[in-house]
Amino acid sequence: MTTTEPLSFLDATFRLIYPQDFAYRQQAEKRLNQLTMPHWALGDLMDLAVDLAGMTRSMQPPVARKKVVVMVGDHGVVAEGVSQYPAEVTTQMVHNFIRGGAGINVLAAQAGAEVCVVDVGARDDFAELVRDGKILAKKIGRGTANMVYGPAMTRTHAVLAVEAGIEVANSLADGVDVFATGEMGIGNTTPSTAIAAVFTGKKVAELTGRGTGIDDVRLGNKIAVIEKALDRNRPNAKDGLDVLAKVGGFEIGAIAGLIIGAAAHRKPVVVDGFIATAGAMIACSLEPFVRDYLLCAHRSAEPGHAALLDKLQRRPLLDLNLRLGEGTGAALALHLVDAAVAILTGMATFAEAGVSQAQE
Amino acid sequence: MTTTEPLSFLDATFRLIYPQDFAYRQQAEKRLNQLTMPHWALGDLMDLAVDLAGMTRSMQPPVARKKVVVMVGDHGVVAEGVSQYPAEVTTQMVHNFIRGGAGINVLAAQAGAEVCVVDVGARDDFAELVRDGKILAKKIGRGTANMVYGPAMTRTHAVLAVEAGIEVANSLADGVDVFATGEMGIGNTTPSTAIAAVFTGKKVAELTGRGTGIDDVRLGNKIAVIEKALDRNRPNAKDGLDVLAKVGGFEIGAIAGLIIGAAAHRKPVVVDGFIATAGAMIACSLEPFVRDYLLCAHRSAEPGHAALLDKLQRRPLLDLNLRLGEGTGAALALHLVDAAVAILTGMATFAEAGVSQAQE
Repeated sequence: MTTTEPLSFLDATFRLIYPQDFAYRQQAEKRLNQLTMPHWALGDLMDLAVDLAGMTRSMQPPVARKKVVVMVGDHGVVAEGVSQYPAEVTTQMVHNFIRGGAGINVLAAQAGAEVCVVDVGARDDFAELVRDGKILAKKIGRGTANMVYGPAMTRTHAVLAVEAGIEVANSLADGVDVFATGEMGIGNTTPSTAIAAVFTGKKVAELTGRGTGIDDVRLGNKIAVIEKALDRNRPNAKDGLDVLAKVGGFEIGAIAGLIIGAAAHRKPVVVDGFIATAGAMIACSLEPFVRDYLLCAHRSAEPGHAALLDKLQRRPLLDLNLRLGEGTGAALALHLVDAAVAILTGMATFAEAGVSQAQE
Repeated sequence: MTTTEPLSFLDATFRLIYPQDFAYRQQAEKRLNQLTMPHWALGDLMDLAVDLAGMTRSMQPPVARKKVVVMVGDHGVVAEGVSQYPAEVTTQMVHNFIRGGAGINVLAAQAGAEVCVVDVGARDDFAELVRDGKILAKKIGRGTANMVYGPAMTRTHAVLAVEAGIEVANSLADGVDVFATGEMGIGNTTPSTAIAAVFTGKKVAELTGRGTGIDDVRLGNKIAVIEKALDRNRPNAKDGLDVLAKVGGFEIGAIAGLIIGAAAHRKPVVVDGFIATAGAMIACSLEPFVRDYLLCAHRSAEPGHAALLDKLQRRPLLDLNLRLGEGTGAALALHLVDAAVAILTGMATFAEAGVSQAQE
């Protein structure tokens, strides 16, 4: 007889994750093929409807209650001048989120989604906002360490960041049908690009973009900084927690956790842009079946994003030259989620409408 | 002294069409640049907001009241076997629209838009639907003639079709903020492809697609049919009414008219897919300033559509492999119209939010 160690929280969560249900996918496909339109004439919207049926195990996929979860973290690597914004902007933007003046507030409201802000790793403590229940406090650390000189965080902190995301998903799941990922963290395209480099094997220079809008000189510096961090830390692409710890960020880990948690609850999770997709990549490296619950919202203007989407073999729904983050692209994609469900549930079949079908 | 002829209805309408207002465009751009996000970080959504301000001469562009106008017409060329659906489907689908079971009903409702069905050239008279006020009767003819043997319609009928569209826009304008174009007409990718060939000068074989889903044999036949029609009729690309009359359709003319009417009322008009863009091309050839009021919804799977969008120098908002028509792509794009206005009117500026701006 052997004694078995109790499962870790992470492993216990992974055990809950199953692929999409094939029978519901087939049933959805069958119904969509009977609707009054030429074969698959609503293209990607119909693929989306099949995915939603397969994820939720329902021919009426519930999608009414939508939540954009904005994970907040700061980055030690900002000291290397990788962003044109000072780190204080992370704090300022959190206050802007709470007052409702940011892009994500406006676009979430317009999509019928609520916004929930979670501090997982900001430098600021947001004492007042936490006291007043305006943000969720899941802080792992006050910003990451500067990854140029060593790991951004310990492996233990990486596990805690992912667990924090899962806990958020668990605590919200009863009241949410569709999750959407958001983030705020000045400098976070830098760790995301490092993560993309590790998982895709592509050159840093090919993957690095202008983030919030840096010039050529800063772009060259950003590339050098990422190369230095990868060289110093040598993250292991076969070990997602190692990548997260060495060149990731607290909010990126929490996004990975939120996605894992959503998958464990069999709820669709709309993945925003570049940073969110770096989180999704970490999540899928930890538990590949997670991929069945991802809805990729849009193709960001950051070059590393296309490489990550390619690696995940996911085609995004929108391509609008967005590069704001916060979850704004995910909020816009929520309209398409509603539209896909409306098609699946609201249209007449050829038989119901008395419309002739295509002739052979 | 010379006597002047009274202006025709068309010419009188063209006189009302002015370009977008540059001062409002500038004012919108200025405000967007002050909002709490990196420069132009919401990309195409911000371009759209500038367009809406320029079209409507307002910093709060009114967009609440949305109307999808579905123009219906039949096509004599269907006798040549260009579609896999029988012509009866036009009639059957109109009944489906009225009962609310079609794709456009579902997607318009989800976008907060009303659907209005207009018969401009169906073979059926829809006597009951007209009597009950369910559809608007603006019939010019019972389907076009077969363009393989001569013009699809007379030049007078082409003028009447465009005028019908303008009249619909005029009659609805008081209660509509944003127009969206829809259409139904079995076979209508065939005249649309012919129109694309005339205006772009490209080869028919490069422009012809599978429409509702024809196979290789029918595709070859469709190409031959379009080439024959162009050869027989020799439409003059410098004369939009000549093109419409010779190789167009009643609903395509009415879409052109609706677009012209919308522009005359300084209201945005969301142009759906391939057939609608053929209508927009006719409209712009008649009065080029019309182009300032077009919002191109999506890139259709039809190859001729890309060529027409290129000719009009318009980038579509969505690319979802749609090829249904009816106005479904336009309905989906209406969400982005709302989102663009929400950004322009609902977000905080850097000053209001106390957020630091980018460092030089």
